[in-house]
Formats: sequence, C-alpha cells, structure tokens
Amino acid sequence: MPRIVVDVMPKPEILDPQGKAIVGALPRLGFTAFSGVRQGKRFELTVDGEVTEEILEQARNAASTMLSNPVIEDVVNVEVLAEDTEAERA
Amino acid sequence: MPRIVVDVMPKPEILDPQGKAIVGALPRLGFTAFSGVRQGKRFELTVDGEVTEEILEQARNAASTMLSNPVIEDVVNVEVLAEDTEAERA
Repeated sequence: MPRIVVDVMPKPEILDPQGKAIVGALPRLGFTAFSGVRQGKRFELTVDGEVTEEILEQARNAASTMLSNPVIEDVVNVEVLAEDTEAERA
Repeated sequence: MPRIVVDVMPKPEILDPQGKAIVGALPRLGFTAFSGVRQGKRFELTVDGEVTEEILEQARNAASTMLSNPVIEDVVNVEVLAEDTEAERA
C-alpha cells in the first residue's frame, strides 16, 4: 500500500534542546563533521488504493493542522514514498 | 551550509501508540483517506564545507549508533538535503 511521508521540523528560530544535546555528544563518539543538529518528526501515512491529488491535498491539510504546531514548526516535505524504499526496509 | 537528513522510523513490528492515536483522530477532522500512521524522527545534520563520502559515512554511523535505537528502530534514509528546499523554508 502506498505511503505519504510528512516531514515536520522546528522553525529555525525556535530553540531545539534535543538537537543541542546531540550535537554536543557527537564529538565524544568521534563524529566531528557536524556543526549543528535539529530534530523533527517524520510521519508515514498509509493509503488504501492509489494516491490521488485529492488525497495528497488531504495529507497536506492534515500536516498543517494536526501533525504540526504552526507556531513552532514548519511542514518541510509532503511526498509519496517511492515503492523501492519499501523493499529496502522489508 | 549543506545538511544531511537522517530519517528514523519504528520497526514495522513495533507498536506505535502515537501513530495509533493519530490515525484514530484523523477521521474526526475529516481526513478519511488514511488507514495507518507511523511516527518517527527526522534529523538534519549541518556540515561546515562540502559533504564528502567520508562525512556521509560518518552520518550513517552516527545514525545507526546514536540517532536510533537498533532494537526498535530502523534508519530508513540518510541523504544530502537538496539546496533548493533551503529556499522553500527561508
């Protein structure tokens, strides 16, 4: 069954304590290449049958009204998950 | 500055109470197209300078050792964020 991915990230100006904690810990584990980390949410919405434009629009509306808090978060991506990544995870 | 996206999802066999709560609430708000929802994490790792294969490998290692719990989560994606999405969010 096809899935729609919705990615939600904290707005750039919002403090991200989790991201700060991670970027502080990374060098201690030898990961020195990263100067910043931000943590957001990733949703996979399963759709019965085909993903039509109307369903994609429903996903966009659900993303902006229910899956994110527009005061502190941005919806940065809403797209149909390519089927091959299905095989990768199986 | 370039960013690397790391996407982490709960393993398919793991119960996802947040996802269950969302899929239960969606129809009440008129979103009827979705039969399932799973919620995971999305990280953006900022890199100073260019993203080399070595840095991408560091991101993969950080993803599997620090940004996810291999017992209950899968790393489903590690990729360089295309610059144009930068403009979309600005």
